[in-house]
Amino acid sequence: MEKAVFDTGDIAAMKGMLDNMHVADIAEEMENMDEQLTVKVFRMLPKDTAAEVFAYLSRDTRGEIVKGIADRELSGIMDELFIDDAVDFIEEMPANVVNRILAAVPPSRREMINNFLKYPEDSAGSIMTIEYVSLKVDMTVGEAFSHIREMAIDKETIYTCYVIDQNRHLTGVVSAKKLLLADTEQLISDIMSKKIISAHTTDDKEELVSDFMKYDLLAMPIVDSENRLVGIVTIDDVLDVQEEEATEDFEIMAAISPSDEPYLKTGVVNLTKNRVLWLLFMMLSATITGAIISGFEDALALVPALVASIPMLMDTGGNAGAQSSTMIIRGMAIDEIQLGDAFHVLWKELRVAVLCGAALFLVNFARILIMGQGFMMALTVSLTLYCTVIMAKALGCMLPLAAKKVRIDPAVMAAPLITTIVDAASLIVYFGFARLILNL
Amino acid sequence: MEKAVFDTGDIAAMKGMLDNMHVADIAEEMENMDEQLTVKVFRMLPKDTAAEVFAYLSRDTRGEIVKGIADRELSGIMDELFIDDAVDFIEEMPANVVNRILAAVPPSRREMINNFLKYPEDSAGSIMTIEYVSLKVDMTVGEAFSHIREMAIDKETIYTCYVIDQNRHLTGVVSAKKLLLADTEQLISDIMSKKIISAHTTDDKEELVSDFMKYDLLAMPIVDSENRLVGIVTIDDVLDVQEEEATEDFEIMAAISPSDEPYLKTGVVNLTKNRVLWLLFMMLSATITGAIISGFEDALALVPALVASIPMLMDTGGNAGAQSSTMIIRGMAIDEIQLGDAFHVLWKELRVAVLCGAALFLVNFARILIMGQGFMMALTVSLTLYCTVIMAKALGCMLPLAAKKVRIDPAVMAAPLITTIVDAASLIVYFGFARLILNL
Repeated sequence: MEKAVFDTGDIAAMKGMLDNMHVADIAEEMENMDEQLTVKVFRMLPKDTAAEVFAYLSRDTRGEIVKGIADRELSGIMDELFIDDAVDFIEEMPANVVNRILAAVPPSRREMINNFLKYPEDSAGSIMTIEYVSLKVDMTVGEAFSHIREMAIDKETIYTCYVIDQNRHLTGVVSAKKLLLADTEQLISDIMSKKIISAHTTDDKEELVSDFMKYDLLAMPIVDSENRLVGIVTIDDVLDVQEEEATEDFEIMAAISPSDEPYLKTGVVNLTKNRVLWLLFMMLSATITGAIISGFEDALALVPALVASIPMLMDTGGNAGAQSSTMIIRGMAIDEIQLGDAFHVLWKELRVAVLCGAALFLVNFARILIMGQGFMMALTVSLTLYCTVIMAKALGCMLPLAAKKVRIDPAVMAAPLITTIVDAASLIVYFGFARLILNL
Repeated sequence: MEKAVFDTGDIAAMKGMLDNMHVADIAEEMENMDEQLTVKVFRMLPKDTAAEVFAYLSRDTRGEIVKGIADRELSGIMDELFIDDAVDFIEEMPANVVNRILAAVPPSRREMINNFLKYPEDSAGSIMTIEYVSLKVDMTVGEAFSHIREMAIDKETIYTCYVIDQNRHLTGVVSAKKLLLADTEQLISDIMSKKIISAHTTDDKEELVSDFMKYDLLAMPIVDSENRLVGIVTIDDVLDVQEEEATEDFEIMAAISPSDEPYLKTGVVNLTKNRVLWLLFMMLSATITGAIISGFEDALALVPALVASIPMLMDTGGNAGAQSSTMIIRGMAIDEIQLGDAFHVLWKELRVAVLCGAALFLVNFARILIMGQGFMMALTVSLTLYCTVIMAKALGCMLPLAAKKVRIDPAVMAAPLITTIVDAASLIVYFGFARLILNL
């Protein structure tokens, strides 16, 4: 229905429709239009709405618009965009376009944008904005309100105001709620809270998530190395960070090099690049399991039935290890498990392994007996299975903790890598038991 | 340092310390105290702070406090708690304690709490709160401010006000920012926005996340089946939902039955219960791979060297499948990939599989030649590897989409299950090529 209006080319109808749509929905519609219509619709939007819609668009669509509009229009957008959105936009454009954009930035904002472009990619500084309200310690509530009314039209959030002293040092916070409920003659310094939760520009943006969750924040002030207020990070960006970080962990844990690009917009060559090196690495590591099997070729020649259980042993080891490593990696990601819990975790996993192993032992023992492969074979395979589960769970919990200890991303120590290691260990145990029990 | 003060039992020092701590930090400290000290510290807190701290505590610590305080004190907490926190608390307590708590609820709140307890566990209704500000359509901005000042002391958020008509139908929203910047004589109906993003009490709470992200909301109004405003959901709860949902997906994808309980607080028996059934199921499924191998025992007897590559083929198939299924499952979880993209996705994955497979084919071919196992063996193993990668990636992307289609959680179709299926297919291909190429 909305689509239909845009297809007609009826300008009045389109304008009427756009007036009643949320900016996020306008952006969504524009993603599905051809280049020409995208630029046409964008030019129909009032100047401030245009900047808001622009902040919601994908990289590709922004690129199309930049190509299609005049420098003067581009300058207008760069003036209206919040600083964090403007910086995001510049960072994702190709170098030749960036020069045109920076030239279009009004001089008053150019230095600020250049400063923001210097923050490292995953730092708190890189996602902060400067559109916040700061109050002086010695203002009254009445003065604060006048200041807010004057400033707020340009500010991303006025729900928390930050109180600074003469040297811009962050000294307190006061919520709009508290201001609304206070008498106009009260001093800001009397109603502000000094319990400030803040972060440094160079902190990892991932670390902000847990503080936002712990303290139920809507925004967090960001200070420089001398505790001077330089910006704020708002919760909408933190929600994005939380989703990105989880996606990154899912990718790393499936042996994929993480990428910021959404799946459907990533080309086949890039998808391949992100995956093939890990596959090659793990395939080559499997040379070890191959060598172990070759070393026991005589045993396999004597009892060929031993081969039949190899895939089951590999898979169960991999699955048992994946369960443990996933729990521990995720626990560390959400700050529930710390390095100091290592022994607690190992002790817990070992007991879980003993219980899981016992159940698997019994069922597998029965299965092999029922299939008529004999008591000794059942014992050999089931004992190996038991040991495999214990090794898998021990490695599955310890390797992610060890990785954290040496500052490697624990997510690397997930199912694929654990499987490769447990496979080799499991085969050695298997042939050891086979020799002992089956007298090979 | 803080710990030390609590250990001394010096009441004045403790009170001084508590005064300067954020409620979330007080709660964190209390988690590590023994039961007696927990109750003692809790009783030291001013009544309103006590309720705030209580909302941050874990189930176990809340239980200890309820046991340690008088009915009158409990009644005070139940009066101060936000409705959503009160309902959470009641839901997690054992039945015998619930009766005592409900008896302590002030009569004015009892009916409301009973209503909230009726919402299904994962519904929007179950995480909503009623502490919001509602304005009437025909109020002026000045009247609105008086109303906010009067009401706001008890309201969880006043940053967005919801506008209702005589029948409580939701008709608009207005931000505190807009109110602050408006003239006091303007009518609410003139400055309110009619672009309302709302949800129903019965909607799945998981679905709220994408709307909060898409529209950058701080709170969302929740309406009943007749579009009457009954509550709001605030972004801090949505941040929790997003984290919980990601954790649940991590668990399911590692073949663990998901649990709300944090890892360190879950007993060994429960951890085992959540894991062992899946392990048993997949172990028994591996009987199929065992049967396939047994069926080709004659081939293995003729060329024992075939066995050495089995773990490598299984692992590579599992890894290649895990990469695809993870990308697709995650893509669906964050609403990037829809069912309608199925062919697009399959076509993409097939091309990625052709490229990844080619790289693996070449490296593996060279590896086997170098290890002196001959051209024919290299060809057999490498061709199987190529087919395995293509099957793994095709199944890895199609099974999660198929699951979604029949309303099963796509996360079930992750690495462990894909591996089990690909293993069997890969073995059949392996022995097929072996017969053809090695003339068995």
